[in-house]
Amino acid sequence: MLNFDYNVPTRIHFGKNVINKLDDELRGIDGTVLLLYGKGSIKKTGLYKTVVHILNEKHLSFKELKDIQPNPRLKSVHEGIELCQDYNITFLLAVGGGSVIDCAKTIAAGYYHDGDIWDLFNGQQDGIRKALPIGTVLTLTATGSEMNGNAVITNEGTQEKLVIQSDLLRPRFSILDPTVTYSVPRDQTAAGIVDIFSHILEQYFSHTTEAYVQNRVAEALLHTCIHYGPIALENPRDYEARSNLMWSSSLALNGLLHYGKKSDWATHEIEHGVSAMFDVTHAVGLAILTPVWMEYVLSVETVEQMAMYARNIWHVGSSLDKFAQAKQGIKRTRTFFERLGLPRTLSEVGVKKDSLKQIAKKVTRNGSIGNFKKLTEKDVLSILEKAF
Amino acid sequence: MLNFDYNVPTRIHFGKNVINKLDDELRGIDGTVLLLYGKGSIKKTGLYKTVVHILNEKHLSFKELKDIQPNPRLKSVHEGIELCQDYNITFLLAVGGGSVIDCAKTIAAGYYHDGDIWDLFNGQQDGIRKALPIGTVLTLTATGSEMNGNAVITNEGTQEKLVIQSDLLRPRFSILDPTVTYSVPRDQTAAGIVDIFSHILEQYFSHTTEAYVQNRVAEALLHTCIHYGPIALENPRDYEARSNLMWSSSLALNGLLHYGKKSDWATHEIEHGVSAMFDVTHAVGLAILTPVWMEYVLSVETVEQMAMYARNIWHVGSSLDKFAQAKQGIKRTRTFFERLGLPRTLSEVGVKKDSLKQIAKKVTRNGSIGNFKKLTEKDVLSILEKAF
Repeated sequence: MLNFDYNVPTRIHFGKNVINKLDDELRGIDGTVLLLYGKGSIKKTGLYKTVVHILNEKHLSFKELKDIQPNPRLKSVHEGIELCQDYNITFLLAVGGGSVIDCAKTIAAGYYHDGDIWDLFNGQQDGIRKALPIGTVLTLTATGSEMNGNAVITNEGTQEKLVIQSDLLRPRFSILDPTVTYSVPRDQTAAGIVDIFSHILEQYFSHTTEAYVQNRVAEALLHTCIHYGPIALENPRDYEARSNLMWSSSLALNGLLHYGKKSDWATHEIEHGVSAMFDVTHAVGLAILTPVWMEYVLSVETVEQMAMYARNIWHVGSSLDKFAQAKQGIKRTRTFFERLGLPRTLSEVGVKKDSLKQIAKKVTRNGSIGNFKKLTEKDVLSILEKAF
Repeated sequence: MLNFDYNVPTRIHFGKNVINKLDDELRGIDGTVLLLYGKGSIKKTGLYKTVVHILNEKHLSFKELKDIQPNPRLKSVHEGIELCQDYNITFLLAVGGGSVIDCAKTIAAGYYHDGDIWDLFNGQQDGIRKALPIGTVLTLTATGSEMNGNAVITNEGTQEKLVIQSDLLRPRFSILDPTVTYSVPRDQTAAGIVDIFSHILEQYFSHTTEAYVQNRVAEALLHTCIHYGPIALENPRDYEARSNLMWSSSLALNGLLHYGKKSDWATHEIEHGVSAMFDVTHAVGLAILTPVWMEYVLSVETVEQMAMYARNIWHVGSSLDKFAQAKQGIKRTRTFFERLGLPRTLSEVGVKKDSLKQIAKKVTRNGSIGNFKKLTEKDVLSILEKAF
C-alpha cells in the first residue's frame, strides 16, 4: 500500500427529509449566499422553494446563478465569479447534480485566483490556495462531487474538458436525500449508475495490488451498483435502491478507494476529450469506452487484476484460464451497461469519425495517459476507433 | 437504510515514516502540549525520542502523562485533567494504542466539564459541549480510536468499564505508520485482529438489512482480517499485512459501517463487564464471548443475517439449510480465533464463576442490552455461563 494523506471532512446529512439540516448548516454564515442550480428541475420538484424558504427564514440574502448545464461551461464559472465579486458573496450553495457542484467549486477557487481560472486547469492547480466555502444539496446520484474536491469544466473556446482537484474544494456539508432522486428520469438514472461504476473501476484497476482492503471495498461498491441499478430503473421510487446507490456514489469518489494506490483514469480522460467536442452525456461516453479500454489494456501485465475482477464481481469460474476469465468479465460489463439501456458505439451518439484523430491528439497533448497501462496518442486513437 | 449524519473529519497520515507529518500538524499550536503514552514501549522503539525531538524543534513546551495502562483507569484521567489545569495545556498528543488515545479523549472532555468526568459515562454524555483538541500517533492496530469519537474508561472504584462518544472527541489528526507495529508482540497482534473483527460484527449483525452497501463494506474488512491476520502473526514485518490490518482497524470503527443502520454492541458490553472486574485483555474477552453470543442469539429472527455471514465470509455452501449455514459460520469464527491463539473460555483467563451473576447484573443495570437480539440480565448470565 502506498503512503497517503486521508482528508474527507465533508459532513453528510443522509436520508429522508434531511433538507431540514440545511438550517443548522447555514448557521454562522454571514453575508450574501450564491445559490447555484441547473435548468430548473428543482423548481418542478419544489426543492427550490424549500431552500429559498430556509434562506429567507434565516434572513440570508442571496443571489442566483442558474441554467448551469450538464458538462458545465467556463462561461458559467466566469459569470459566477463576477457575481461573487459584485455582491460580496461569502458562501456558495449548490443545489443540483455534479455539474452544478463542479461549477460552484470552480467559482470558489476562481474568486481568489488572480488571472483566468482556466490557468488552474492547465497544470497550475497547485495555485489553489484559498476557496470560498461550499455546501451542496444533491439531486442526482452519479459524480460523487458532493464529497470530494474535484471539478470538471468544459472550455467551449478551446474545446477542452479538464479537471481540478484540491482538498480546499471539498464541500463543508452535503445534503443527500434519496427521495429527491425519485423523479430522476430513467436515462439519467442509468447514466448515474455507469458513472459510479466507472469511477470505481478507474481506481480498482491498478498495479498497487497490495491495496487489498481498498480492492475489497471497491468490490463492495461495484456489487451495490449491480444489485440496485436494475431495481432503481424498474421502480424509481424504491428507497432501498435509491439510498444504496446514492451513498455508493459518494463513497466511490471521496478518496476511500484511491488512498494508498495508483489510479488509472485514462477512460475518463478519453471521454472528456469526446464530450468536450460533442455534447455527449459523460456517462454515456464512459459506458461506450470502458469495455473497449478493458479489451485494449488486457495483457500479461494486467490479466491478473482483470481476472480477479471477473471472478469477484461476475463470479466467473476460476477453472478458466486467466485471459478467458478476464474476457468474460469484460463481456459481462458490456452486457450490464447495455441492460441499463446505454448505447454501445460512439457513432450512435453523434461523434464524427473524422474528429477521432483530433480527440486523441488533445487527450495526450501532455504525454501518455493512464497508469494501469500507459496510453500514447496512437493507443487512444485505436481505442476511439474500436469504440466508434 | 436509516437516516444518518456522517462526520469523519480526522486527517490520517498513513504509511512508512509518516511521523514527519507531525511537524506540519503541530503548526499553529500555541501553549503547552500534554504528551500521553503507556508503559514505555515507545521509549524502546525510539518513537518517544522522535516525537520529543519534533516538539523541541518547534519550541513547544510539553508535560507528560505516562504509564497509562491497558483498560485505562479513571485515575489516569483525573491526573491528566489536573495537569491540563495546572499547566494551561492547549493540545493533547496521544502516542500509543487505544488505551492511551481513550484516556486523552476523556481528559479532553473532562477539562471543560464541571464536576466529575465519570458523570459523562453515566448517561450524561450529551454533557460534552467542548473538548481540548487531540492528535494521535498510533502504535497498535486494534481499537480504531484514532479515527473516532469513542472512549472506554475503567472506574476501579465502582468496577465499571463504560463508554463515551462525541464527535468533539474525534482526533484532529492521526499518524499511522504500519512499520511501528512490527514490534508488537504476537499475542497483542492477535488480540488486535480479534478486536477489529468484533467491531465489524457488532455493526454487521443488524435488522437494518437494507443497509446493503454497509454490509458489503463490512465483509470487505472481515476478509482483510481473515486474509492478513495469520500472515502478520507468521511474519510480523510483513508490510502488506500490517498496513492492510492497520487501515482496516480505522475504517472498522470510524462510522463507515454503522452510519445508516442499527448496531448491536451487546458482546462489547458484556466484555466490558468482565474486564472491569478482572483485568482481562479486551479482545481476549471478545474472542471468548463472540461465538457464544452468536450461538445464543441464533433464532428464526436472526438466522438470515447469520447465514449470510457464513456464506459471504466463510464460503459456507448455500445448499445447507439456513440454520446449518449459520452454525457453520459460528464454528469457523471460533476456529479462526483459536488459530490466532486466543483462549476459548472465561475460566482459562482467571474469571471467577461466582462473579458471573454480579457481572450480568451490572451490565444490564440500565435495562436490556443489544439490538440484534435484546438481552436481559438472565440472557447475559446464560451467555457468561456458556462462555465460562
